[in-house]
Parts: sequence; C-alpha cells; structure tokens
Amino acid sequence: MSKKQLIQELVEALGQENVITEQEDLVCYSFDATPDVPNPLPDVVVTPTCTEEVAKVVTIALKYKTPIYPRGSGTNLCGGTVPLKGGIVLLSLKMNKILEIDPENLVAVVQPGVIIQHLNNAVAPHGLIYPPDPGTVTTATMGGSVAECAGGLRGLKYGVTKHYIMGLEVVLPNGKVARFGGKTVKNVTAYDLVKLFTGSEGTLGIITEITAKLIPAPETAAAMLATFSSLEDAGNAIKGIISSKVIPATLEIMDQVTIRTVENFAKVGLPTDAKAILLIEVDGIPEVVAREAEAVEKVVIENNGSIKRAKDEQERENIWTARRAALPALAQFKPTTVLEDATVPRSKITEMLLFLEQIAEKYKLDIGTFGHAGDGNLHPTILTDARDKEEMERVHKAVDEIFAKAVELGGTLSGEHGIGIAKAKYLELELGEAGMDVLRRIKNALDPEGIMNPGKIISN
Amino acid sequence: MSKKQLIQELVEALGQENVITEQEDLVCYSFDATPDVPNPLPDVVVTPTCTEEVAKVVTIALKYKTPIYPRGSGTNLCGGTVPLKGGIVLLSLKMNKILEIDPENLVAVVQPGVIIQHLNNAVAPHGLIYPPDPGTVTTATMGGSVAECAGGLRGLKYGVTKHYIMGLEVVLPNGKVARFGGKTVKNVTAYDLVKLFTGSEGTLGIITEITAKLIPAPETAAAMLATFSSLEDAGNAIKGIISSKVIPATLEIMDQVTIRTVENFAKVGLPTDAKAILLIEVDGIPEVVAREAEAVEKVVIENNGSIKRAKDEQERENIWTARRAALPALAQFKPTTVLEDATVPRSKITEMLLFLEQIAEKYKLDIGTFGHAGDGNLHPTILTDARDKEEMERVHKAVDEIFAKAVELGGTLSGEHGIGIAKAKYLELELGEAGMDVLRRIKNALDPEGIMNPGKIISN
Repeated sequence: MSKKQLIQELVEALGQENVITEQEDLVCYSFDATPDVPNPLPDVVVTPTCTEEVAKVVTIALKYKTPIYPRGSGTNLCGGTVPLKGGIVLLSLKMNKILEIDPENLVAVVQPGVIIQHLNNAVAPHGLIYPPDPGTVTTATMGGSVAECAGGLRGLKYGVTKHYIMGLEVVLPNGKVARFGGKTVKNVTAYDLVKLFTGSEGTLGIITEITAKLIPAPETAAAMLATFSSLEDAGNAIKGIISSKVIPATLEIMDQVTIRTVENFAKVGLPTDAKAILLIEVDGIPEVVAREAEAVEKVVIENNGSIKRAKDEQERENIWTARRAALPALAQFKPTTVLEDATVPRSKITEMLLFLEQIAEKYKLDIGTFGHAGDGNLHPTILTDARDKEEMERVHKAVDEIFAKAVELGGTLSGEHGIGIAKAKYLELELGEAGMDVLRRIKNALDPEGIMNPGKIISN
Repeated sequence: MSKKQLIQELVEALGQENVITEQEDLVCYSFDATPDVPNPLPDVVVTPTCTEEVAKVVTIALKYKTPIYPRGSGTNLCGGTVPLKGGIVLLSLKMNKILEIDPENLVAVVQPGVIIQHLNNAVAPHGLIYPPDPGTVTTATMGGSVAECAGGLRGLKYGVTKHYIMGLEVVLPNGKVARFGGKTVKNVTAYDLVKLFTGSEGTLGIITEITAKLIPAPETAAAMLATFSSLEDAGNAIKGIISSKVIPATLEIMDQVTIRTVENFAKVGLPTDAKAILLIEVDGIPEVVAREAEAVEKVVIENNGSIKRAKDEQERENIWTARRAALPALAQFKPTTVLEDATVPRSKITEMLLFLEQIAEKYKLDIGTFGHAGDGNLHPTILTDARDKEEMERVHKAVDEIFAKAVELGGTLSGEHGIGIAKAKYLELELGEAGMDVLRRIKNALDPEGIMNPGKIISN
C-alpha cells in the first residue's frame, strides 16, 4: 500500500479541501516552537472538521500503519507536534467551535481547535474565566494545551490545565470514540481517564471535545514589583510570602541577565542593577487584595528587598509587559533560544538559581532565568546558536546537568512544557526503570500499533 | 503450591506477628462498610510495616497467583476491600507514620495507614489543613481514601482527594517499587500516573507513601441553615448561590425524610415541616465571609426560603451535628442501609431530587436523600432489610433506575465512593464499550496476572 493510496483514501474520507500535500505547505508542519529537534516533513496534513472525520483518519492510518501527529497551533516547546517518523499531521484548527457555555455548572464545552483566549473572551460576559494562561494564550489551542497540559503565570493560586479539564471526548488509537468525565465536579467512576489523556501529548489518542471548568473572575487585583540585591534574599522572600499564608495569583522571578535584556528591549523602567526582581499579583475581593498586598510588602522588606505597588492599571500593565517580554527579549539576543522548564520544590528555588549561575559560568553560556517562582517552575533560557556545533555541545551538557539537579532536588523535568522529543531521554532519571515500564505498558496497551505520535514521551 | 506453603512464606518474609490466620480474625476482614455484597473469608491477612515488606508480599502472591486486597480501615462504601476471590488481605495499619510536614512547600508526606484526622491534627499547629474530609475522617486511612479517591463535605470549594495528591510511592503488581510526582505544584512529566493510581481502588498496585498538598486554614467561617417548602425552590437556591459567584466551602441538602429522621435521632431543632433544608458554610477572611454570607441569604430569600445564620460556635456545631447525623439516623431506621452516590451536574439537582421521590413511590421504598448539593453529589439512601428478598428485588430495580437517570442527566455513577463491586455492573452505562475497553487494557497491561484486588471496578 503506497503513500499515494493513503492520500487517496484520506481525500475520499475528508474531501480534497481537508487534505494538504503540497511540499511548500508540508514544510510548515515539519517544526513547532521547539529548537534543536529534528524537523522531518510529514507525508500529508489533514484538517478534519468533526469527530467522525478524525475517527476516519485514525482508521485509515491503522490500515496503512502510518503515524498520526495531532497538532493545534504548534506552539509547544518540547517537539510534541514534530512528525518524527513521517506520516499524517492531523490539524485541529477547523474544529474550532465553542459548543456550550454553561454558567450554572461553571463549565464550557469546546472543540479542540478553539484558541484559549477566544474561550476566555466568550466567557467574560458571564463574569467567568478559564484560568490556565500559558504565554501563548492568544495563539495556542485548547486541544494542544490539554494534550501538553500547559501551565502559565497563574498556576500558583489557580493550578494548571489538568485542574480545569472535567471531561474529554477522545478518538482512540483503534478508531473508536470514547467519552470520559463530564460536567460533574465530583467523579470517581473508575480510573481517571480524563487525567490520563490530559498531558498524554497525543500518544494515547486524539482529543476531539473538551469540557472545561470555569471560575468566577476575581474582582480586583494588585500588582507589585520587588527588587533584591541578592538571589538568596529573593528566594527567601518567595518562601516567606507562602509561609505568611498568602497564595498570590502570580509570583514571578527574573534574574539579572533577564532584567537587563528585557529593559534593553522593552524600556519599562526595570532596575537593571538588581540581582533579581519578583513580579507579584494578588487578586480577589478588594478587602482580600488590600490585606494580602500588605502581607507581601512586609515579607519583601523583611528580606532586604524594596517593593513598589502599581498605582493604576497602566503601572500594572507595565509590570506584566515586562514579564511577557522576558522570552522575546532573550530570544532576540542570539539566533537559538533553548528554553527549559525544570521545576523544583519551592523551598529549593534559591539553590536552583545559584546552581544555574554556576552552570552558566562552567559552560561559558549566556543563561537568563525567569519563571514561575511561586511554584518552583523556572525557565532557565540558554541563548545560543544552533549552527555553532561546539557551543551546542556545551549547551547539551549544561541541560543534562540542569535536569539532573532538578530531579536531585526533588523536582521534575517538566513543570509545564511536557516531555515530547526534547526531554524523552531524561525521563528515566525521574521515573526510574519501574516507572518507565508502567509508561510503556500503558502506551502499548492503548496503541499497540504505535501510530499515535510515535517517538514522543517514550522514545523507543 | 498449597495455602499452607503460601502462609509459611509470608511468615518467613514478615514475621509471625504480621500474619493473621485465625478464622475468627479473618471474619473481620471479609466485609467492609458496604451492604449487599458478597463477604467471603480471606485465606490470610498480612500487616507489613514498610514498603519492602509490601513488595515481598506482592512477589509471594505472584508466585502463588494469589489475589491481594489492600485495606486500610475498611470504611469504603463500594465493597472495595472485600476479598472477593479469597487470598491475601494486606492491611496498611502498621504503616502509619507521618514522615514529614513541610510548611515551606505546603506538603506532608505520610504512610498509607495514617488516619486522615491525625494528619489534620499534625498540620494544624502550622496553620494548615488537608481539606478532603469524607464522613469517616476520624477512622479512614490516607491510603484507603487515596485508593478510593474519597470526597467529602468541602468538595465544592476545595475539591476532593485527587486534587491534593501530589506524589505517590506504589508497589506495582510485578513487585517493583515506583515513585510518581513529588513536591512540585507543577509536574507534567509524562502520563499523570499519580492521578491514574489515585482512585484506582487497589487494582493497579499498592500505595505505600503519599505526598499530600496542604493549604492555609481558613481564618473564619459562617454556617447557615436555609429552609424551603419545595424541592424546586431549594434546587433553584443552589443554582442561584453559585450563579451569584459565591462558592461555599459546604453546601449540603437534606430532604424531608432525612430531616425528620435526623430530628427524631439528634434533637437539634430542625424544621420537620420543611420539604428540604440547605446547610451552608462560607469561609475565608472575615470580610469575605461577611460578604458571601449576605449574598447567600439574599439568594435563599429570593427563592422563597428562610435562613438562619449560626450566631456562635455552638449553633454552628448544631448545624454540622445535624448533617453528620444524617447517615447514622437513617441507618438506625431499618437493618440495611443502601447508600448511593450518584452525581449529576449542579443544574440537574432539582430534576434528580424529584425523580428520587418518584422512585421511592414507584417501588414503595423508604428513601432519604441528603448530600453534597453544591457539587451535585447526592446520597439517596434506601432503608431496607437485606433478609427481605422481595423488597431487595425492588431495591435493586430502584438502584438500576437511579444510576441510569444519573448518567442520562450527564452525571456519573460515583461522585465519591468509587465503583468497587457494588457499581461494576453499571460501568458500561457511563463509559460505553470503547471506554470499558480502555479500562481493561490498562488493567491487563499493569496487572497481567490479575492479582491486584480482582473483581473490583472491572468485574470480569
């Protein structure tokens, strides 16, 4: 059975308008937002418009034993959507309807191609929000962010994607359609298959419908910028804020490399002499916000920091513009940006930050570190050039050490980006042989032909 | 290989003091809190004292192809711990150490035999709580409540067990020890095996260590009792409270049968003429509590109810005494209490309550309904006598209809008790053939010999 026959069957099933085969189009689907991973061309890209069409694609793929790579907007940072072994890229972008907004049950039901921000725009008139907010919130799809279990800036108080996914419809690797979970807040019926598929990176099936939890929008918020002349003080302030029983919506850190690069890029008035800054937002009803902001200020001062509260919406916007500028600012510094998301227990942040400084020195690399300090989810960002083979070798050694350290400190390889191709080789570090065996057994049980996003999470 | 040899090997591995074989002792482990399920004797009960001993038991069980039934305090309500096919009951009660309380990371690490309330007592001096609070909180173990993914009264605002389990150590059905998750709030490394094992009811492995999330204790709370002369008004008030953007910590309902039985039993001054009452608690900092209590009162009055706020701790205690008395009061009415936990989307509560009234009439049964109205998790409680075969037939027909209705309304078979033996036969109703196939594949992949709690969740 040839590639030509495969494409012919896909055209018959979905119509010519949903099958892309031109070489120049296929190139666009050979990569995603991840640097330093292979970028092979897929054989074909399909754009199904409904669950039945997705099921047809899977059935055809099974017949031809051809891999399928589900893809939303391709914003992921772990090579999750790269068509590693050729085959079919399955795009969710034509399945982009918000099927239901249900304020009584505080849920929304959406197709996988809905952009996260579009969901938030749609629920805003009901006074509701869908809290997960990865940096790519205006581009990334619900399907992609569920498959990768995306995180974001509000993870500390509000949790990440998995905490908001209540129900899924999935096309299984055998072409059958299954539904798990639903609109009930409580559900302990059998294994938690909603959670198993959330974050499974398209390796167990294709998500075709999502029931997402919504929450009332916070009434008000206060943003603060805290400045420190040592990493230790900044780390102690982070711990101190949580110990004072305040859980900020957002608690971000930037190290000096990041501060200087951002200031140079965005000119928002950041203190370029500081060794670290924290960007903090507390939210809720006005009484709570006032109280929590005071508590945060007290902790920062106790830890030798200085703090400024945003006086108005413009000042607040400046703080978050600075934070959002971190990655683009670092990225314009050199051609290749290796952005990691090694995550450690909150109590180990200072240790991890100091370690990252040592690693930059040891391997003579430019590393800017920023990220979600409140939940220990740091983004050490190595600024490099993929064409410089010698430097890339140093980058790889540095990354090896960073992941080993994260696991040694009781942390994890990935706080929010997923494993994909990029971190598959480190997986046994964290899960051990017994854990890897569990992963493989589950993958082989559900996808015995190995057609679903092969080479991701489990590398062989 | 004989039963005698099996026991001999267990004694050699664990010591005589950790192996129970006396018939009169074995009887105690033939049943749990679930009525109307088989109660066969186990061959032997073991009480391992550490993970290594648990692993030894699994290895021996594998050799003899003998089933293992993990058991904590046996308080579950789905027959989850009944030794259905004979074999080994593995008691966690000697693994009852709180290994670590870590206020900086807001986590505690415990062995599975720790009683939930003991964990809460230990973290209270740090101003922290472990929120999941099943009715059996003073008896149930952490291991059992994680395996069954127990719910409780605070599920609406705080979530249930699965939302608080961050890491697990598990002895797998092959005798290997694996660790998943840990102390980081964010973790998207590979499949979410912590969530897969949470609620897997001992069918995939034995939990030997738990890393649990803690949260700051709410500063204050206000309890309220709302009285309604129609189920519709009570149902509308529930929806209205949530729509007004208040998420109470607790939002419970009792129907008239339950109110009258409780008042007769506990004499706490409940309005016996009411068709339904709601018991509501809001918590947080004083300003939030004051505001949310007012909002709740407004909604209740708008829906033709009357409401009383507890003036002091004694009045608050009375309200929760009444709620906690619901099950014991109903249970003393007749010899057998069939307590279900069918759960519907919040918007369908009125419909479900009216349906339960019809079912009681249709099958001429005494059904008292109470439960966690805020999250749609009702406890229709059928008061009967297992010795009355004719009535039990009507009970079974009523239960069939209740589960079918819950699923029809977009709900689930189990909000918090699990599937076990009691609901296994209904599972396909909710998951369909494709979903059942996924469950079976996972079970067979991880436990190919079928030694882990056989007959639970998946009945064949």
